[in-house]
Amino acid sequence: MKNYKMILQYDGTRYDGWQKQGNTANTIQQKLETLLSDLVKHSVEVFGSGRTDMGVHAYGQVANARLLWNKSEEELLLAINDRLPEDIAVLHVEEVPLRFHSRLNARSKRYCYRIWNSRRPPVFERKTVFWCKEALDVEKMKEAASCFLGSHDFKNFSSAKGKKSTVRTIYNIDILQQGEEIQISFHGDGFLYHMVRILTGTLIEVGEGKRTIESIAKVFQEGTRQDAGFTAPAKGLALMEVFYE
Amino acid sequence: MKNYKMILQYDGTRYDGWQKQGNTANTIQQKLETLLSDLVKHSVEVFGSGRTDMGVHAYGQVANARLLWNKSEEELLLAINDRLPEDIAVLHVEEVPLRFHSRLNARSKRYCYRIWNSRRPPVFERKTVFWCKEALDVEKMKEAASCFLGSHDFKNFSSAKGKKSTVRTIYNIDILQQGEEIQISFHGDGFLYHMVRILTGTLIEVGEGKRTIESIAKVFQEGTRQDAGFTAPAKGLALMEVFYE
Repeated sequence: MKNYKMILQYDGTRYDGWQKQGNTANTIQQKLETLLSDLVKHSVEVFGSGRTDMGVHAYGQVANARLLWNKSEEELLLAINDRLPEDIAVLHVEEVPLRFHSRLNARSKRYCYRIWNSRRPPVFERKTVFWCKEALDVEKMKEAASCFLGSHDFKNFSSAKGKKSTVRTIYNIDILQQGEEIQISFHGDGFLYHMVRILTGTLIEVGEGKRTIESIAKVFQEGTRQDAGFTAPAKGLALMEVFYE
Repeated sequence: MKNYKMILQYDGTRYDGWQKQGNTANTIQQKLETLLSDLVKHSVEVFGSGRTDMGVHAYGQVANARLLWNKSEEELLLAINDRLPEDIAVLHVEEVPLRFHSRLNARSKRYCYRIWNSRRPPVFERKTVFWCKEALDVEKMKEAASCFLGSHDFKNFSSAKGKKSTVRTIYNIDILQQGEEIQISFHGDGFLYHMVRILTGTLIEVGEGKRTIESIAKVFQEGTRQDAGFTAPAKGLALMEVFYE
């Protein structure tokens, strides 16, 4: 058995997210496990760096799997891509030490949320952006984003349940306006369930003038999930990169 | 009656091309005529600058139609976009003189053909590029493209039938390589049926080393359609811009 690390790209539109579920085969993880099991003729488990929600995309998801494979990494990559549907691709395959685990060893992640900020409809980008017709004040959004930097308890900016720690560290939030598109890039040590989409929804509300920057500190201190912004739609979100040691 | 000029964008994937046909309503022209007739409560004919084939896209198709409309251009634009499916949009509407005709008055057009030149699959671009896995020699393609510049009888580089003139003038062909993508931009006074796709197919064969640059002059002089390159797939092609006086 060898352990292989893979970098994956997928258009999440047609899928029920990354994580396999009891009653549906329509997840990325399930597709990969079925394909790899067929290819190497033994049962394969695929470990992702983390879940992506239904409809969320990935440009650089990382996964690993232990396989009986005697040919080269390049041949494995081509064999997988030959069998994948055209909305999923493997960009890179490499053999890694057996102890490597794509989730447990991940140090940080970068997500990007794309907003189409125009009256004009996003014909060609419609499946990978959230269309916001009202003009957003990007400078205000940048100012608001700085409230999220550093280590905080992001419980009220997430749909997380249970008793696990909800403290996370955001290293950087970049907001870039290019033509009719606004891209918000989040780099952090980890993100709670729905956290990037709720942070984005909160920033959009600031940009629309529906929420003050001061309201953010209050949500951290004394608020609940209801006091934070809306959950921005899945289709604007993409997992860009997973960083390791 | 006022005459309105419209600039249109569409993702051609789901449609049977621009031009309405007897037995299908699934063309862009038919969609627009039905929608506009419903909106203005009289029968409407929409004139396009030219046909686009089944599966071809447009970033800047131009059309005109005569309408009984008493509100503003802006209100017309919003009313149309509200009623269009999300893969078609109107970018601009303006009233023009009654004599304006989007096809008859067109002076030149610009098309762009997108080639994805990589072993890696084009996950997010898969519906708007032609995937060519073999590395193309772009410098050779640029040299070959210069053979098409100026006025020529392009009959052998088209699927044109009938007795109309097949002489056309190409002002410019720009070939741009950006990362894994090669874009070929064609600007000319007009293009015959399948002409841009056959010119592109011929350039791809040169880039692959399957055809010499000298073979192009021979196709003009003594060849037939069979001697020119293959017809590159529709999905890589887009009508970018139509120019008027």
